Amino acid sequence: MVFHYPNGHPSHYNEASKQKMQEKNKSTSFANRGMRFEEAINQSNQYYLNHNIAVVHKKPLPLQIVKVDYPKRSAAVIKEAYFKEPSTTDYNGVYKGHYLDFEAKETKNKTSFPFKNFHEHQIAHMEQCLKQNGICFVLLWFSTLQRCFFLDSELLIDHWRQRKNQKKSLPIAVIQENAIEIQPKIAPRIPYLEAVDKHLQTKEKP
Amino acid sequence: MVFHYPNGHPSHYNEASKQKMQEKNKSTSFANRGMRFEEAINQSNQYYLNHNIAVVHKKPLPLQIVKVDYPKRSAAVIKEAYFKEPSTTDYNGVYKGHYLDFEAKETKNKTSFPFKNFHEHQIAHMEQCLKQNGICFVLLWFSTLQRCFFLDSELLIDHWRQRKNQKKSLPIAVIQENAIEIQPKIAPRIPYLEAVDKHLQTKEKP
Repeated sequence: MVFHYPNGHPSHYNEASKQKMQEKNKSTSFANRGMRFEEAINQSNQYYLNHNIAVVHKKPLPLQIVKVDYPKRSAAVIKEAYFKEPSTTDYNGVYKGHYLDFEAKETKNKTSFPFKNFHEHQIAHMEQCLKQNGICFVLLWFSTLQRCFFLDSELLIDHWRQRKNQKKSLPIAVIQENAIEIQPKIAPRIPYLEAVDKHLQTKEKP
Repeated sequence: MVFHYPNGHPSHYNEASKQKMQEKNKSTSFANRGMRFEEAINQSNQYYLNHNIAVVHKKPLPLQIVKVDYPKRSAAVIKEAYFKEPSTTDYNGVYKGHYLDFEAKETKNKTSFPFKNFHEHQIAHMEQCLKQNGICFVLLWFSTLQRCFFLDSELLIDHWRQRKNQKKSLPIAVIQENAIEIQPKIAPRIPYLEAVDKHLQTKEKP
């Protein structure tokens, strides 16, 4: 609990903390706790793993390693490497026998989600996984609105393929109508498996 | 086609190529084609992907990136990074709705497969995936014998946990009795999904 003094500032308020808070607000924050969306997903995955609920990991960034030094008595040091474009989505894993595959993205926009967040190779990868009956989706975070959605990849792919030349983003109205909204919690922060369960129920119904 | 001259050497034979061939033979080769086992698996995955049979990718190596340079007009260069220990197996993906998770390992041994090829965190990861009804296995390549086996992770984990302090390897007799042998082909080079199919059939039987 923070006590507020007559000037309206908390007791630990000073110029340094003011500056820090301003910097915090400038960066894309998650639920005003200064946490990025991706970190919230990673923590949720850790929660699911610790509780034997699901095994989902973020894939490491693919790098082209060019030069490695092997100094005596210490670990190998990579001295030259370059970022490569990933050929898949960022997250995959297993939940109750289902293969899960997804991407987590955020935007500051309030009215739509920009298509530029998704690349051709990711769309192609999701199509391939859908053909194999994988559960593919995107987790969308509207940081300004503080709203999170589970969107089935099929719908995203449809819109991305049809509209990418005319429209540059997916309207929030379409998302609200077709996606499953996720209410952030304490733990797991982003309970996206609840949305997966709902999605599986919808799929099972004729 | 290579013409052989009376001395028994092909026409392009010379000292340099002799040295090169010796080096090739020294390295762990795959089916005498100078190809490493992992490359054969990667090519098989590419075959399965191209033919819409399965979506399986090798995960990138996890690295701890310490220093990145952003030179003007060119791509970011990683100047200092370190290898991290992977927390999962190398391969995962989706096949007919099934989550696949596996590790591919090779040995020059002829009588057993050394346990040191598998680390605690990989064993733990496979246990977690099995709990979620994932299909977990290891592909073992005996390079000297030129034999390849699909081994269910459950059996590996059993032996690894029980015997690691007494025995240092899994005898080939145990592997032959419990694993599914894979006959390398032209394409895919390692048709491991045939073994997955057999494994699934065994699981479905009571």
